[in-house]
Amino acid sequence: MQEVIQISTHKHNGLYDITDKVSQIVSKSGIKSGIVNVYVQGATAALMIQENWDDSVQEDVINLLKKLIPPGIWLHDQQDSNGDAHLKAGIVGPAESIPIIDGKLGLSTWQNIFVCEFDGPRQRRNVIVTLYNCG
Amino acid sequence: MQEVIQISTHKHNGLYDITDKVSQIVSKSGIKSGIVNVYVQGATAALMIQENWDDSVQEDVINLLKKLIPPGIWLHDQQDSNGDAHLKAGIVGPAESIPIIDGKLGLSTWQNIFVCEFDGPRQRRNVIVTLYNCG
Amino acid sequence: MQEVIQISTHKHNGLYDITDKVSQIVSKSGIKSGIVNVYVQGATAALMIQENWDDSVQEDVINLLKKLIPPGIWLHDQQDSNGDAHLKAGIVGPAESIPIIDGKLGLSTWQNIFVCEFDGPRQRRNVIVTLYNCG
Repeated sequence: MQEVIQISTHKHNGLYDITDKVSQIVSKSGIKSGIVNVYVQGATAALMIQENWDDSVQEDVINLLKKLIPPGIWLHDQQDSNGDAHLKAGIVGPAESIPIIDGKLGLSTWQNIFVCEFDGPRQRRNVIVTLYNCG
Repeated sequence: MQEVIQISTHKHNGLYDITDKVSQIVSKSGIKSGIVNVYVQGATAALMIQENWDDSVQEDVINLLKKLIPPGIWLHDQQDSNGDAHLKAGIVGPAESIPIIDGKLGLSTWQNIFVCEFDGPRQRRNVIVTLYNCG
Repeated sequence: MQEVIQISTHKHNGLYDITDKVSQIVSKSGIKSGIVNVYVQGATAALMIQENWDDSVQEDVINLLKKLIPPGIWLHDQQDSNGDAHLKAGIVGPAESIPIIDGKLGLSTWQNIFVCEFDGPRQRRNVIVTLYNCG
């Protein structure tokens, strides 16, 4: 079973919580024990499991990556000025595979699923959600 | 097939090798060709494939992450003083999917599976091990 | 279904595009909807999804990792002088799981699959490609 989640992003760098959307797809599938793979297309976006108690960790993620991978100093900037976005996306990675346990997403209390936008705003980011049954 | 490995951690930051436990689950499953997904719950822990010839690489991992993501300077520290732990967990990531080849874990000689604790000690960390057959 | 891609590397640090090889395996499998797991063995190599419009992003990846994880300052260097290679491999990670959509690799236009060599040259790096059907 495979579905596409579409989101739009309004920030240049920002995290977008898609946990509820993935959770609904898992419920609808009826799978009790398995895996859900969440994959974001686009070489300047990524996927991260992170806390969502408030916005602080999300802002910390953006600030950390800006410090480690500053804009404007990369060879690729001569092409289209987004070298930092590609590097952030490559390091964080586009996908996570999360267990389905007793018919539900196997996240712990403080784990949420975020799309990381590193070169927004974008009208459309596609997230491919693929589920398989291991029951 | 799905099983839970429980570990306790005694360090604030430390790597814990769970390769043998995952390997036993793979053997027990009888799966000859497939995938094992290893997923650690908790937004301040992560999973890393790394060498375990001696302790040196594990200490280097802790020292590297402390240098790149120092404690005490994050917005989230105003909530519960563990902003660095969340950031380390998000960058390293909670899961890996490893091939099962000829009925065994498809790791190479120097690849081991480690739970990374970034906010210990903790009495209990849950690692979800999910296997599927692609034979 | 499971296949092995073998590559040789000629640089000490370098990215090697294996997208075409993985794509051919997906086509051959006949799977319309599923997942392909790509896993590189060896604790000093890794796998990254990254742009391949030209060489610039690949060089930026190598330069970024050299800056964040410089050689020659790690405990493990006393064993075999490649502490930085292990750390890079651990942070980037050995695997990605990519959706198969309508019988094709579900990468977007600018996403390619690279083996990252951090301790080359090596005559042989094994990449395990495992596919499963979720149709």
